[in-house]
Amino acid sequence: MPESEPTGEFGLIDWIRRRERARPAKSPWTKLGIGDDCAILDVGPRSTLLVTTDMLMDGRHFRLEKDGAESVGHKALGVNLSDIAAMAGVPRAAVIAVALPCSGASGLARRLYDGMAALAERFGVDLIGGDTNAWDGPLVLTVTLIGEATARGPVCRNGARPGDSILVTGPLGGSLHAGRHLRVEPRVAEALALHAAAPLHALIDLSDGLSSDLSHILVESGGMGAILDASAIPIHPDAREMSRVDGKTPLEHALHDGEDFELCAVVPTAEAARLLAEPTKGVSLFRVGEITEAPGLLLRTSAGEIQPIAPRGFDHLQNSVP
Amino acid sequence: MPESEPTGEFGLIDWIRRRERARPAKSPWTKLGIGDDCAILDVGPRSTLLVTTDMLMDGRHFRLEKDGAESVGHKALGVNLSDIAAMAGVPRAAVIAVALPCSGASGLARRLYDGMAALAERFGVDLIGGDTNAWDGPLVLTVTLIGEATARGPVCRNGARPGDSILVTGPLGGSLHAGRHLRVEPRVAEALALHAAAPLHALIDLSDGLSSDLSHILVESGGMGAILDASAIPIHPDAREMSRVDGKTPLEHALHDGEDFELCAVVPTAEAARLLAEPTKGVSLFRVGEITEAPGLLLRTSAGEIQPIAPRGFDHLQNSVP
Repeated sequence: MPESEPTGEFGLIDWIRRRERARPAKSPWTKLGIGDDCAILDVGPRSTLLVTTDMLMDGRHFRLEKDGAESVGHKALGVNLSDIAAMAGVPRAAVIAVALPCSGASGLARRLYDGMAALAERFGVDLIGGDTNAWDGPLVLTVTLIGEATARGPVCRNGARPGDSILVTGPLGGSLHAGRHLRVEPRVAEALALHAAAPLHALIDLSDGLSSDLSHILVESGGMGAILDASAIPIHPDAREMSRVDGKTPLEHALHDGEDFELCAVVPTAEAARLLAEPTKGVSLFRVGEITEAPGLLLRTSAGEIQPIAPRGFDHLQNSVP
Repeated sequence: MPESEPTGEFGLIDWIRRRERARPAKSPWTKLGIGDDCAILDVGPRSTLLVTTDMLMDGRHFRLEKDGAESVGHKALGVNLSDIAAMAGVPRAAVIAVALPCSGASGLARRLYDGMAALAERFGVDLIGGDTNAWDGPLVLTVTLIGEATARGPVCRNGARPGDSILVTGPLGGSLHAGRHLRVEPRVAEALALHAAAPLHALIDLSDGLSSDLSHILVESGGMGAILDASAIPIHPDAREMSRVDGKTPLEHALHDGEDFELCAVVPTAEAARLLAEPTKGVSLFRVGEITEAPGLLLRTSAGEIQPIAPRGFDHLQNSVP
């Protein structure tokens, strides 16, 4: 797109990122700004912070009346936990800003809080602050989560190398079926276990969809490509359920649906083979393809044919949940 | 209020704070959670972080069509900078989440960014990340700002002692006149200069209004009181302008209007006298009253009478800008 007219979420973020990169860093802390799952701040000799923020809006990312406030609270914290997992970090503390519909604001706030607090408890996160507002508009909430990198450092999107294996941590597709996207199960422990067990060249959480999120890794890694094996991609039962209704194949759902919140890791192939042969406790792993030097995202069909894949994940500027 | 029905911003925040205090802290970092201008995280031996978040909604905190997107961007970062100033910290890095109206989303995002980036530049802040969404609702944006405490530590609200002097850094009242509330001028440098020059027992920024914000200090300091001198309170020309129209006195505006974003500092009286006699370069200071052991907020009128003051600052659950 021409710079004068950024459109779509990624176009706009790219525009802002170019602007920010053109400014010299102002703070001594900034290690990595816009463009990965979290920003990275080096705040002290052994203190590396991860920072992520996500805003959810009624009618876009959830339907309050149908989904219920506890689920919305869970999802709002969950998507941020997933971003910390995507850098192989440890979540620590969250702040929450909320715009409540005036009618029933206090009861709603309490149920949102209950949904968040239960998840915060499980993941060792403190809810340290917030901003509470009411208005005559729909519910909007923003969670900002701060985490800590481990001693091995955070894992970014930019280290994929030709020949590396592409792994995912669970079955994909159909997260919109029966509201599964609300019940985010952040892969924090899985990311930490993998990071301790093997050198991870790149890591991302599957929030936008495999085709779209893997493309981010390919671009950030300097213009790599990848080939995915259709028969190796684990397909979620929900993808089959949805394909009965909408006519897309289960594989299309697995490739392009967002909000599964599984991890996609790029790992040297020898290490990947070892991880697959000796599974890390509690971590499911599926090898779905490999990184190639030639740019572009390709699919090897079960018949052995090679086809291009056009990324078409969830664009948060354009799409809504049902 | 009974616990089952929190109402108003402060009732709700108190409810959440009680809940959070009832949970043991989960993170080793958490030094101070909900209840001050910023949360405090001790992330390393010499690294104390300040974290604050504020959400602004079109129709509540600004009017996009009238005020313009650059002003909104400025205000969104500015109110957060003011919270860092209120702890006498150094702002470092911000993340921004935004819900853009679908129509004209990209152009709007760019103008918001321009307003924020100009202020970020002046205050040494990096814009390190964000979340960009669009919907058919009004503009909502959340800025979360991370700062650093100085070697002298952050200044909280809870250290006021009987006999201390109450200082403010500028004239008060009428911030809604001609949109002055949008042009937040965060008192970061002033807070740092005061913190270096004298022991500050308590500090807060005047976002909700002098009567309301000073009451926060009194409550957090264990139930102190204060007496304000009507003739000593600096009154902003905008308060006089507004009083011509709405019939409230300029003093009422100065006592109760929010969003002046001046600082209110509580300082031992001998130190306050020294600060007033030898002004810190670039810092205006006005002594407006003193802390008392007896609870309650009182006003000494220019005729020498003593009257109670009922706090009635800006409640972000209830009020809108014009």
